[in-house]
Amino acid sequence: MPALTNRQVRLKSRPSGIPQAEHFEIVEAPVPELADRQFLVRNEFLSVEPAMRGWVSAVANYADPVAIGEVMRSFSAGTVIASRHPGLAEGDQVMGMLGWQHYAVSDGTNITRKVKETDLPLSLSLGLLGLNGVTAYFGLLEAGAPRPGDTVVVSTAAGAVGSAVGQIARIMGCRTVGLTGGPDKVALCKDAFGYDAAIDYKAGNLADALKAACLRGVDVYFDNTAGAISDAVMSQLAVGARIVICGTASISSWDPPPLGPRVERHILVKRARMTGFLIFDYQHRYEEAIARLAVWVREGRLHYREDIADGLEHCPGAIAELYRGENLGKRLIRLPR
Amino acid sequence: MPALTNRQVRLKSRPSGIPQAEHFEIVEAPVPELADRQFLVRNEFLSVEPAMRGWVSAVANYADPVAIGEVMRSFSAGTVIASRHPGLAEGDQVMGMLGWQHYAVSDGTNITRKVKETDLPLSLSLGLLGLNGVTAYFGLLEAGAPRPGDTVVVSTAAGAVGSAVGQIARIMGCRTVGLTGGPDKVALCKDAFGYDAAIDYKAGNLADALKAACLRGVDVYFDNTAGAISDAVMSQLAVGARIVICGTASISSWDPPPLGPRVERHILVKRARMTGFLIFDYQHRYEEAIARLAVWVREGRLHYREDIADGLEHCPGAIAELYRGENLGKRLIRLPR
Repeated sequence: MPALTNRQVRLKSRPSGIPQAEHFEIVEAPVPELADRQFLVRNEFLSVEPAMRGWVSAVANYADPVAIGEVMRSFSAGTVIASRHPGLAEGDQVMGMLGWQHYAVSDGTNITRKVKETDLPLSLSLGLLGLNGVTAYFGLLEAGAPRPGDTVVVSTAAGAVGSAVGQIARIMGCRTVGLTGGPDKVALCKDAFGYDAAIDYKAGNLADALKAACLRGVDVYFDNTAGAISDAVMSQLAVGARIVICGTASISSWDPPPLGPRVERHILVKRARMTGFLIFDYQHRYEEAIARLAVWVREGRLHYREDIADGLEHCPGAIAELYRGENLGKRLIRLPR
Repeated sequence: MPALTNRQVRLKSRPSGIPQAEHFEIVEAPVPELADRQFLVRNEFLSVEPAMRGWVSAVANYADPVAIGEVMRSFSAGTVIASRHPGLAEGDQVMGMLGWQHYAVSDGTNITRKVKETDLPLSLSLGLLGLNGVTAYFGLLEAGAPRPGDTVVVSTAAGAVGSAVGQIARIMGCRTVGLTGGPDKVALCKDAFGYDAAIDYKAGNLADALKAACLRGVDVYFDNTAGAISDAVMSQLAVGARIVICGTASISSWDPPPLGPRVERHILVKRARMTGFLIFDYQHRYEEAIARLAVWVREGRLHYREDIADGLEHCPGAIAELYRGENLGKRLIRLPR
């Protein structure tokens, strides 16, 4: 194989809030020779996630921060193009923490899984059949514990996680109400993801709109935003409500934590339960969820939207774009073959 | 039986925050004749509870508010002195929603239970062997789910509920840390209730004191206060922490809800669970808890303190005194025979 040149997106400086394009730089680097038990992946799709804000933050979090000068941590999906590893052969498709770069050398420890659903697009392994779908699946079913007939409210309802939550809730026999920003996403929620109601939180009067859409109160709130959106939902809880804290996209900085109305009274009076959900705790059960999700995709019961940008140069600004809500569907970067 | 004159504490006006003496009045009223299936209770002990603030509040709550002019709702314990009810005889001891008054006519619907632990003081049926003890028992064991070795932090640690929580947690093999106000209550926590550590939240530097007392973080937080005390605890959670919201004693008014640091990040990063706990949901299991608690009392494993005032005239100001933390032990009003 001729010597390959890699292009990588590296962390240049540490942001205090949401990472912007200027916090990254694109550099060229040689692809090293493979050692024994290593393999080389040519990345085809790179993921962009809200969680990336946490990965580059210096504030204590559930993973060590990406170091300055290090390749930006990301889930990526690609094809093995050379292998000295006994478990993987040329042509195998893999998904893992392969970083924002064209080529990744791996010994397998940073591989999340070998992609088995080769009848479906590889990009799905970064979205609906990846962490987003698995997060929606376990977050809703385990922490949210939905029952048929429940009213399930989802924030970032048109997003990669939220759209899966809404659809899985419907499959479970729930009524679904999506909260999203702008008329395009409201339409997407209703037309593509089958929400029974979708509310544009930017249109004002969220509390009234929620009340009208959830006449018997909110049984499950799957929360990807926190902030003012959550404040409105908290005042509409039904008795025994379950709140799943999955993300806090509307909070631009947690240092110091912003103020909001205290929630204890809602939690107490409604005997509600608020649970923090982190998908990494479910690593041992990924295949169980993906197998189920893939069946629903093949049956046409689970739909998805992808918003794909071509070329590594789209990476640096992609996290900030995500937080501005500019994407319609799962945000991915596609690399040329 | 000669005609009896009743004395009652009635709600005179509706408070917006914590009820004060001026919101009540003491009036005399005749004791009506018993109808068929009714019985007459001479109250011996009247309870004073933090929850009374909610019972007289106009803000939507989990029970209808006490009407203006109505006898103040309260748990009371007394002896049946006349009965036309087939299930109760003269001399039986009962506990129930008998109100702040000397005599109560009942058809049984407002009776919580017939007191069976006649070897123990009747006053206990309003505290450790009443709602306070049962709240501690189910709140800790069901919502808090303590495991041996857990660090359990309790707010209002010397109070009627808190002191039972701390002791039950110890019986369950947990390390217990009590938060309370003032050196007298700190001493009570350590000497009478066996807390491994007790912190005076009024002494300042609560966050540092908590950190020092909970080196591996807080596994269970049994919260009776909300507010600044909870803010300090939330920043010390261990992974998988359980927070039981049982009361909000430090918040003087929820209308509008006061602001505080948002909790979602703590909940998410620590995969914590915050559960609202209301004892009325466990009504069908009271006897199970009381039987267990009574055994622990008889074995000398569960201690209690009572702070008893003699005479109905202590009732009107008693709720405000409770919120000022002036009592050392369960606050009760004793009525003369």
